Amino acid sequence: MATPFLYHGQDVHWVVTRDETLELTLVSQSNATPRQIYVRCEPDNEQRLIPMEAGKQTAYLRYWHATIPLNRDKATTVYCFKWVTETEQFWLSGVGISHRMPGLEQQFRYNAQAQPPQWVQSQVFYQIFPDRFANGNPSISVKSDEYCLNGREMPTVAKTWGAPVSTHNGTGASEFYGGDLQGITNKLDYLQALGVTTLYLNPIFTSPSNHKYDTTDYFTVDPHLGTNAEFAQLSRDVHQRGMKIVLDAVFNHTSHNHPWFDRFSQREDGLGAWHNSDSPYRDYYQFLGQPTGGREQGNDNYIGWNGIDTLPKLNFLNSEVRDYFYAGDQNVIAHWLGKPYDIDGWRFDVIHMLGEGEGAANNAHYVKAFRAAAKAANPESYVLGEHFFEATQWLQGDQEDGAMNYYGFAHPLRAFLAGLDIAFDPIALDASEFAAWLNEATAKVPWRNQLAQLNQLDSHDTMRFLTMVNGDEARLKMALTFLFAWVGVPCLYYGTEVALEGGHDPDNRRCFPWERLATRKDMIELVQTLAHLRTHSVALQQGSVQWLHHQGDVLAFARTYGEQSYLCVLNRSFEAQTVTLPLWQLTVPVQSAKGILSHEQWCCRDGEMTLSIPAQHCEIFLLS
Amino acid sequence: MATPFLYHGQDVHWVVTRDETLELTLVSQSNATPRQIYVRCEPDNEQRLIPMEAGKQTAYLRYWHATIPLNRDKATTVYCFKWVTETEQFWLSGVGISHRMPGLEQQFRYNAQAQPPQWVQSQVFYQIFPDRFANGNPSISVKSDEYCLNGREMPTVAKTWGAPVSTHNGTGASEFYGGDLQGITNKLDYLQALGVTTLYLNPIFTSPSNHKYDTTDYFTVDPHLGTNAEFAQLSRDVHQRGMKIVLDAVFNHTSHNHPWFDRFSQREDGLGAWHNSDSPYRDYYQFLGQPTGGREQGNDNYIGWNGIDTLPKLNFLNSEVRDYFYAGDQNVIAHWLGKPYDIDGWRFDVIHMLGEGEGAANNAHYVKAFRAAAKAANPESYVLGEHFFEATQWLQGDQEDGAMNYYGFAHPLRAFLAGLDIAFDPIALDASEFAAWLNEATAKVPWRNQLAQLNQLDSHDTMRFLTMVNGDEARLKMALTFLFAWVGVPCLYYGTEVALEGGHDPDNRRCFPWERLATRKDMIELVQTLAHLRTHSVALQQGSVQWLHHQGDVLAFARTYGEQSYLCVLNRSFEAQTVTLPLWQLTVPVQSAKGILSHEQWCCRDGEMTLSIPAQHCEIFLLS
Repeated sequence: MATPFLYHGQDVHWVVTRDETLELTLVSQSNATPRQIYVRCEPDNEQRLIPMEAGKQTAYLRYWHATIPLNRDKATTVYCFKWVTETEQFWLSGVGISHRMPGLEQQFRYNAQAQPPQWVQSQVFYQIFPDRFANGNPSISVKSDEYCLNGREMPTVAKTWGAPVSTHNGTGASEFYGGDLQGITNKLDYLQALGVTTLYLNPIFTSPSNHKYDTTDYFTVDPHLGTNAEFAQLSRDVHQRGMKIVLDAVFNHTSHNHPWFDRFSQREDGLGAWHNSDSPYRDYYQFLGQPTGGREQGNDNYIGWNGIDTLPKLNFLNSEVRDYFYAGDQNVIAHWLGKPYDIDGWRFDVIHMLGEGEGAANNAHYVKAFRAAAKAANPESYVLGEHFFEATQWLQGDQEDGAMNYYGFAHPLRAFLAGLDIAFDPIALDASEFAAWLNEATAKVPWRNQLAQLNQLDSHDTMRFLTMVNGDEARLKMALTFLFAWVGVPCLYYGTEVALEGGHDPDNRRCFPWERLATRKDMIELVQTLAHLRTHSVALQQGSVQWLHHQGDVLAFARTYGEQSYLCVLNRSFEAQTVTLPLWQLTVPVQSAKGILSHEQWCCRDGEMTLSIPAQHCEIFLLS
Repeated sequence: MATPFLYHGQDVHWVVTRDETLELTLVSQSNATPRQIYVRCEPDNEQRLIPMEAGKQTAYLRYWHATIPLNRDKATTVYCFKWVTETEQFWLSGVGISHRMPGLEQQFRYNAQAQPPQWVQSQVFYQIFPDRFANGNPSISVKSDEYCLNGREMPTVAKTWGAPVSTHNGTGASEFYGGDLQGITNKLDYLQALGVTTLYLNPIFTSPSNHKYDTTDYFTVDPHLGTNAEFAQLSRDVHQRGMKIVLDAVFNHTSHNHPWFDRFSQREDGLGAWHNSDSPYRDYYQFLGQPTGGREQGNDNYIGWNGIDTLPKLNFLNSEVRDYFYAGDQNVIAHWLGKPYDIDGWRFDVIHMLGEGEGAANNAHYVKAFRAAAKAANPESYVLGEHFFEATQWLQGDQEDGAMNYYGFAHPLRAFLAGLDIAFDPIALDASEFAAWLNEATAKVPWRNQLAQLNQLDSHDTMRFLTMVNGDEARLKMALTFLFAWVGVPCLYYGTEVALEGGHDPDNRRCFPWERLATRKDMIELVQTLAHLRTHSVALQQGSVQWLHHQGDVLAFARTYGEQSYLCVLNRSFEAQTVTLPLWQLTVPVQSAKGILSHEQWCCRDGEMTLSIPAQHCEIFLLS
């Protein structure tokens, strides 16, 4: 027997009743006659098979309904569907249809106890690396030789806006272009016109480097970027426009220039931890023995993040450290979420490596504590974790709202469109394997956390997408269109809208080429169109995903919410491709599809639509 | 390009260095020329790609080596292999080869911090339901109307050995056949001759029912089964034979007849929890309100396991309950592991549902505590959990040593050979889907925990396998042979060796038909052969698995440890099948294969072996 058509739109087919039960809908072809259909769930870890009842029938489809209990013992409730015929059985899970019960990690999952804030899913994020975005106040720009990053080494270098980034070893962090908060403020009109709704800033707290992941003061904006008052004003300006702002911080380690550590003896009282074991801050870090010499020599025997001695790892077993960052009345997390800064969320850098001792021991405890501190200060704040690889364990409802979605978005997309993995090794995936990767990543995370995942083509930590595809702009446009159509929040890395290039870090942090606003209207308009579409389409923000095709170089899926449905079709090959899509499977009746970018219109006949997609093209169609 | 041959024998290809690193070996075809090969691991949740170095080369194979750090922040270390060519990449994980990085749950996993006791993997277990195995002391057998199970209801019924089990609703628990500890003692010669090395007894503590999952005294053997002294003697006898013994207990709930609860007012002091809210045991359970009437009425408003009011759920938030079962000096877990009982392990019933409140909240905390209590009493004790479905979360090294392996063994095997799932719905799997299920279940659990999983064809909770296949003994023999060849500890449910039939519970608990010892020598000899083979073969006990074939109705895999290798081939079809197996892929050179059961011999030519397998047959071959 052929595999039946079965579909369950997460969210779309949910109704939560008094936080105790979940009403589920399954969709099948209308003429299917199973012996029995069940929802399988595991309240208190015990299997329950709940029969589904037949509901309405349309020309092509049949609806089935059941109500399941929400788990009481954990944040998430997992479930799947069992379809039994006279001779075999089929199971529907988040990764598709199988002949046997799927593993728990593949099953649909609903997160009842700790849902991400709803505002997140409707945003268009824009990531800014402050030193490289815009210089609004040249008087505070770092000057050459103004200070040294490491005691008497690594003097600062002031560079001309747009001059090539130095890629010499070790000097990348000490050169400055003068971007600052005033520069961002000056460009808010531009960003808003582009369609951006949330700013995500790389770290802005006081720090000697240009990237500022080596913090020396968590409570003060770096004076070369601006003042706390200026940041408060920027945040007000952003909010007055109906936009949001998210900050980035690293709590795993500080700079060795932090006054607590004071590697370069800048404290007058000499109480820095590096110098002597009597320092009140000594236990804030993890020294492995007594000072080897006198005060001048200090003690180099301490744990640095990833073995890097300029980034001493904090000791979260120390209660003062815990109080400072998350547990005390005036903790860092709450401080910036509160008045007058009112930030809307935190991105926690290298959060996966934070823990007790040298490594990540007891990591979940601290991520939960960070979350609790953020939600206590603002229940609607967005808790975003940096994870370069699989982040499943942090996204089950009790830790993060969303992650930097490298694993479930950037990695598969670069593999499919650039043929490269994150280590720049060749990788060959067809559309079916690409879809399977996306499905697996989606299935493992509760649906609403998936909607709050931060999807990016590239970031300050990766080669820019355009450079990775050797400047092939058709490839970039395809990727951008897909970014705005797929599940999760689209986030643009500054400059993508004017086709900014950039190789490996730090070349991926070039100055914004403002002169391109005049020359790259094509790209800007594409982003505006996509951002406008996304911001005004509930289906793209939170609609379920329904795969209609994935084979060879072509894929097609619909995103549907209520009566609204969009179709996304992507053809990565260098020739036009024709596909026939089974639109009868959609829960909205479809007569025609109109391209958002091309304005081309296609008709649906007998439940199917045959359409031609140009070479290297991705299009989003409004279905009606 | 074709998928390369890649193989990694867990355990076989491990060397642990000072508990800090793991030396790994990967095997490929000898003529493969990758651009690079890596082990991928995640110390402190951060990806590390460690290049592998080429080692020795044989006619067909090439060996590659690398050393990875063991995780410090968690019990398990996961890793997989990345094989990069000029145009694409292949990854090897516990489920096989893929074009992209496998999900973490599929990767190889090594459990360093909490390994199961090594003795477990070399055992042949035998599960005994005491009332139905053998009557050694008729004077203590339950008599008809000796007592009632529920106050004045459900009087006991004494039945003649071998008389049909009553399958009427509700009377299954009150009929007794007189099996007892002395009966087990009397049969130790028989069991030892059969090849059994570990006895696993269903509960023996004082309890009104025949199944004894409704305990009334955790410190006393039920007087109708024997005395504590008799049990101590049985345990000594077992140990003197070099055998082991494991007991079963349910700590999630007690009987409503337990003196703490005293539903039927058998206490003279009237202090039972059911009767009044001042009972010192009131808080041992979970009453939801005050008594509705006077003392006579008691309070029926309490939480019972799965809603069953005869099994009131214990309250583990009460410290006296915790002390009694696992935390106190004289706790139940330690008591039976200590002198003079010296049991070798515990099977914890419905352990997945145990927790705080009505359900399984904070379950992991208690399972870890149970484990700690058991290991404190005897570090070599076996901690076995009952799980009818996926038990992955309990088997990551910090909770159980092994589980009742329904999910990874009994369910797939009954699906493949009986075409039925656990709910008796039809299920159709080919050999490839069957292998994928086994692989998935294996991959999710650290290898040495897999070796300590308890594999069964059936149990006191399922229909007997022979009855499920409608009495087709060829099917049973296939399943038995597979049981002794596959990863995990084989466990026979009493009577399987004489082809005992039995339908749904309680018909699956028929009396042992001792008269069949004379008539079913064929089955007994098969079990003896398989048990002897297993007990004397390190490769079957702990050898790695290497799939050589899985298609349609036929599967073949090798199990290899050092120089010892066995091949298992199974053909479930009703016709003989011929397969050609790529034995060149094995790490031991193979000239020939000799059948353990058939004594047939097959030769290997140019690295391949073509052999014919009779209809409905499973054979284990010694390779040499």
